[in-house]
Amino acid sequence: MDKNILGTNVVAQIGILVHDIEATSKAYADFLGIETPKWFWTDTVDVAQTEYNGVSSEARSKLAFFDMGSLQLELIEPDHNPSTWRDYLNEHGEGAHHIAFVVKGMKEKIAVMEKNGMPLQQKGEYTGGRYAYMDTSKQLKILLELLENDN
Amino acid sequence: MDKNILGTNVVAQIGILVHDIEATSKAYADFLGIETPKWFWTDTVDVAQTEYNGVSSEARSKLAFFDMGSLQLELIEPDHNPSTWRDYLNEHGEGAHHIAFVVKGMKEKIAVMEKNGMPLQQKGEYTGGRYAYMDTSKQLKILLELLENDN
Repeated sequence: MDKNILGTNVVAQIGILVHDIEATSKAYADFLGIETPKWFWTDTVDVAQTEYNGVSSEARSKLAFFDMGSLQLELIEPDHNPSTWRDYLNEHGEGAHHIAFVVKGMKEKIAVMEKNGMPLQQKGEYTGGRYAYMDTSKQLKILLELLENDN
Repeated sequence: MDKNILGTNVVAQIGILVHDIEATSKAYADFLGIETPKWFWTDTVDVAQTEYNGVSSEARSKLAFFDMGSLQLELIEPDHNPSTWRDYLNEHGEGAHHIAFVVKGMKEKIAVMEKNGMPLQQKGEYTGGRYAYMDTSKQLKILLELLENDN
């Protein structure tokens, strides 16, 4: 395997799949003693340009974020369209789905990871940046999300 | 649920169950561009005083740690004795098992969590401190580990 592929070792997010984002958000908020954050939908496919396994997908998720020290905990409730979120939730049930890293040069990082046997699974755009889920389950036993922000 | 149960929201560790700690440690080390850390066995039951579901257990695990920004990633390869590690690995396969928080007042935290429907699943001692795995899977969709260090 190539060495130091991402150029960072700072975990920015832990993503957790849930069936009911409102119930689980309230549980985390109570447990942490904070206000329940508002969840929001990811963008529609025309904006997000979502691709899952190389195919355009209308999949969306409800997202809610919690600040947990230096990283964010992200709750994800997917809709029923094909996505890494929906398929992983169906297969594994609720629980951790990925850890995320902020990178520079998304295209190059994806290319190096694919060359090293860690294929792109899903990608999309959000306001101010883009994400890519890389299938690192064989090597690292958890999926990795790459995040690239425009500034 | 009682509010702000732990008194902290800082994730200290992410624990990942693996079948082969040497292979997965090498994959992480290469991926991150660092030296492969040496794994070590958790203490034997006479030292660790391990209890799983209220019963003494001889279970041990091989552990390896990686510094990932402000937190540690912990790889865990359990032996075949009964433990949260072994049972979770058998049931769910390799992947994330828990997130850990450093607390003060372990006994009180366990009592408050149990009162709120999050039972103690496993506990034990290590040099300089102790741990408790709390079954928060119903509420938080991932297990929580409490860590208390003596200084």
